[in-house]
Amino acid sequence: MYRAPVSEIAFTLKEVAGLADVQAHADHTEVSDDLVLAILEEAGRFAAEEIAPLNTVGDRQGTRLEDGAVTTAPGWKEAYRAWAEGGWNSLTGPEEHGGQALPMMLQAAALEMWNSGSMAFAIGPTLTAGAVEALEKHASPYLQETYLPKLVSGEWMGTMNLTEPQAGSDLNALRARAERAEDGTYRIFGQKIFITYGEHDLTDNIIHLVLARLPDAPAGTRGISLFLVPKFFVNPDGSLGECNDVRCAGVEHKLGIHGSPTCTMAFGDGDGAVGWLIGEENRGLACMFTMMNNARLAVGIQGLGVAERATQQALAYALDRRQGRAPGADGAGMSPIADHPDIKRSLLSMQAWTQVARAICYANAHAIDMARLAGEAERRHWNERAAMLTPIAKALSTDIGVEVASLGVQIHGGMGYVEETGAAQHFRDARIAPIYEGTNGIQSIDLVLRKLPLSGGEHLQGLLDELAAVAAAARDDGREGFEPMGVALQRALADLRGAADWMLRAQAEGRQAEALAGATPFLRLMGLTLGAALLAKGALASDADESAGAHRIVLARYFAASHLGETGALAAQIATASDVVLAYRAEA
Amino acid sequence: MYRAPVSEIAFTLKEVAGLADVQAHADHTEVSDDLVLAILEEAGRFAAEEIAPLNTVGDRQGTRLEDGAVTTAPGWKEAYRAWAEGGWNSLTGPEEHGGQALPMMLQAAALEMWNSGSMAFAIGPTLTAGAVEALEKHASPYLQETYLPKLVSGEWMGTMNLTEPQAGSDLNALRARAERAEDGTYRIFGQKIFITYGEHDLTDNIIHLVLARLPDAPAGTRGISLFLVPKFFVNPDGSLGECNDVRCAGVEHKLGIHGSPTCTMAFGDGDGAVGWLIGEENRGLACMFTMMNNARLAVGIQGLGVAERATQQALAYALDRRQGRAPGADGAGMSPIADHPDIKRSLLSMQAWTQVARAICYANAHAIDMARLAGEAERRHWNERAAMLTPIAKALSTDIGVEVASLGVQIHGGMGYVEETGAAQHFRDARIAPIYEGTNGIQSIDLVLRKLPLSGGEHLQGLLDELAAVAAAARDDGREGFEPMGVALQRALADLRGAADWMLRAQAEGRQAEALAGATPFLRLMGLTLGAALLAKGALASDADESAGAHRIVLARYFAASHLGETGALAAQIATASDVVLAYRAEA
Repeated sequence: MYRAPVSEIAFTLKEVAGLADVQAHADHTEVSDDLVLAILEEAGRFAAEEIAPLNTVGDRQGTRLEDGAVTTAPGWKEAYRAWAEGGWNSLTGPEEHGGQALPMMLQAAALEMWNSGSMAFAIGPTLTAGAVEALEKHASPYLQETYLPKLVSGEWMGTMNLTEPQAGSDLNALRARAERAEDGTYRIFGQKIFITYGEHDLTDNIIHLVLARLPDAPAGTRGISLFLVPKFFVNPDGSLGECNDVRCAGVEHKLGIHGSPTCTMAFGDGDGAVGWLIGEENRGLACMFTMMNNARLAVGIQGLGVAERATQQALAYALDRRQGRAPGADGAGMSPIADHPDIKRSLLSMQAWTQVARAICYANAHAIDMARLAGEAERRHWNERAAMLTPIAKALSTDIGVEVASLGVQIHGGMGYVEETGAAQHFRDARIAPIYEGTNGIQSIDLVLRKLPLSGGEHLQGLLDELAAVAAAARDDGREGFEPMGVALQRALADLRGAADWMLRAQAEGRQAEALAGATPFLRLMGLTLGAALLAKGALASDADESAGAHRIVLARYFAASHLGETGALAAQIATASDVVLAYRAEA
Repeated sequence: MYRAPVSEIAFTLKEVAGLADVQAHADHTEVSDDLVLAILEEAGRFAAEEIAPLNTVGDRQGTRLEDGAVTTAPGWKEAYRAWAEGGWNSLTGPEEHGGQALPMMLQAAALEMWNSGSMAFAIGPTLTAGAVEALEKHASPYLQETYLPKLVSGEWMGTMNLTEPQAGSDLNALRARAERAEDGTYRIFGQKIFITYGEHDLTDNIIHLVLARLPDAPAGTRGISLFLVPKFFVNPDGSLGECNDVRCAGVEHKLGIHGSPTCTMAFGDGDGAVGWLIGEENRGLACMFTMMNNARLAVGIQGLGVAERATQQALAYALDRRQGRAPGADGAGMSPIADHPDIKRSLLSMQAWTQVARAICYANAHAIDMARLAGEAERRHWNERAAMLTPIAKALSTDIGVEVASLGVQIHGGMGYVEETGAAQHFRDARIAPIYEGTNGIQSIDLVLRKLPLSGGEHLQGLLDELAAVAAAARDDGREGFEPMGVALQRALADLRGAADWMLRAQAEGRQAEALAGATPFLRLMGLTLGAALLAKGALASDADESAGAHRIVLARYFAASHLGETGALAAQIATASDVVLAYRAEA
């Protein structure tokens, strides 16, 4: 059972993440509050009624590979087609190719709900969205006209083919090769692994985006090109022709997201898979990064979606399950476990963490929208904001997904460990998100080495000043519990400023290895502080006399009084543990 | 691949947990250092060569229920029988029934290795050990003579039947009923769930210990009696007779430990299962607690065992897998990921946490041994020490099991998410341990409400003084890195003293609900501090010029500089978050 938290999502978009800035822009005058609510409600209905019921069968039956063809679980194909026909694949797609060109913020909100419905279902369209964006920005008019309309509508799906056995996090090591053909196309040879929805029966065609090297390409990542390799060729009239030289050679047996086929793809077992170049030769990585940045936010939203679903389920269980007597309980019977203080604490943590992930992911989407809409003067600011928030949205939200799902299992007790309740599925599903689209370690390194130094560190200062204003407003608000919340936030901000200074100084002084050693605790420190500030921002905009508002204030107070306290230890750890870390030799 | 860390285990027993105190006792003059090492090496060999290879097949094939009979995975029966024939089931068993009466500390060490080999395998004998202890302490001579020799040898296995659908953490709600028969036996009726190894083919007989109520029993836990219900009756000559009225009605489909059958047991579908009373009527809970206390330490050791195995596997992978170039790398190729600072940090965390779990579990076993061996004057001290350490050993070590296994998955990257590497199995297996034998929330409540106040809080003070002596010794040691370690430990101890005072005051002032709200962070705070002190104790006893000693010092320094810093936030959280927690209403 999943109920889309539409009003909380709308509140977060509007009062926390800044949807009004986007609505105020001339490109989005049609995005009224009414339209936003209508879209959220309809998306929530589809997620709850059509997708959520598929989550269990996707997990239990998984996918089946037979003679190179992958069959998805019963009901998945019908649901996907209904979803695409409902226009849900085209929310942000370009208008000239049939898309609705709505803000990324709305897409983020809808994506949360698809992921709450079923993470294994929602990940497919995420990859299509990446392919759409790469083609829109980098592909030739021929490729755009041939492929974009059906990718935008969802009639076809896209994939992203990076990983090879020897090249996971390190794309320098890619070996798949491409040869120039006389007709201007290319022939692709090589094996790719971990290809999500690399083969399936949801759509009639699958459009693979594949990284490979030309024979005369420079070594390393400057010698990688991006190719479009359709499963079936497309005839000039748009109908499908023969099958390309690409096949699914295997499907992984995974810990979770069983509904989503993770394929080993063989390109060019015969004469070579026919591919079309996207962008310029040897510039494939830039194109791929277009896909990857938004994909990182989308993966963060997976963590959010699973966290929300796990929280709803644990809450329902805790209100229903009775054991023992809670302090101060009336009557004679056993109390709902939700009344026991220790379980309350766990439920509060689940709800607060989930809201932290939501606020950060939506703020990230806001920055992406603003970067697209901004004039020359502001574009850099918003691009930097999006760049800075992306690794945090990805890493923190996916850690949150695992932590919250684990708390959900725990609240279920023994029932959480048997698969029939579904609590364990969330825990298994969520565990991939900290790994793919750049491990969370890599996100942390990206934040520390590439994002903190943006504009010489000034972008970071501006962001911290914004958070400091929230902290001061909370401290001075006057309502019950706000002052300690503001003070806790100010303390956390001081920790964050100190750690950021340390990080920038370490890099300026050539002690890059020390910065790397502290990257993971730094991302968590920054994410905690940012998250607490966004919860406080929401609390400031909430009415304590109204039930949802009072709940938001409780969450913000709880988070500031509990989890936020970790920032001091994280800041200290960054400064003091790095020499021990670097001195460590694993082989000893 | 698992290699038993025999020398590290021996060091921890001896230099950290106090094995010499036990060896010095007249009852254990035979337990020489040579004997200890010989037992550890032989147990390690069996764990690595005979048990560890069964872990994967146990996970993949699980167990099969057919016509009420459960078949374990291929090879399991043979391995179990070889294990029992090797005398491994009888290490601590009473001599008069064929046991070796060795110290619990050796049993704890061996149990770590069995669990590293396969947690699903090791859990069966853990339950037998609990049954042996309950029978030894509470059963009639007839029951002891009839059942103990074969339970001690491992020829038969024991089970523990507490849980019913409506009674998990709350035994007040038990409904299984017992009726007196004319011959002095009883007839048992009722269904029990989550019965580990409730039915299987490893042994010819299974001895169920079952909690049930007599018709005239008082309500609540003072009306529960404990019965012995054999699967097959035992003839006067020791041969097996007919089957009792007990059957396995189902086997759970679980997240992990698939090799271990978790059964629904139906007692008395016919005329009633014949049971023999253990101890006195209505005093069953006291008998059951005999089993449960040691079972709690055994579950803590499951967390330890899985953590050690996951760490070994992640380390091997990180040394083998090459990606990117580490800072300062020589040569041209890719570096082992173990050389990247962020991965070093993760490996250090895995190793340090594992050693924390080991030190605490062994210290707990030491206290149990000392309580058994102590004269009148010291018995209370050691009983209190064992009582205080048990909830920490159980809860912290099992949290460590999950955290370390999760880091292990993460270090494997995408390969960690596919089941073939086995990293995901550790993550799945480990997840039950924080739940069963009293959830970790219940352990925290036990620590705060029942253990902190022992001897009016004086036992705690004595323990803290011991830890303070370690901190002072570290601060004054003079070797590189020891001073900050000692200072960090002193700070943590101050946090712990403050939080413990707060907890005892809250209870003295009738604010029990507040104490409950802070119980989970308190247990972690105490566990972190205790763990860091034990690592420091090991470091103080180590030679920095010797490779293993240098490694121990690095782990202790790293843990003090990183994870230990969390204590300040935990102490603050206990004092400041409890009012928000209590004000929270889940139903809102």
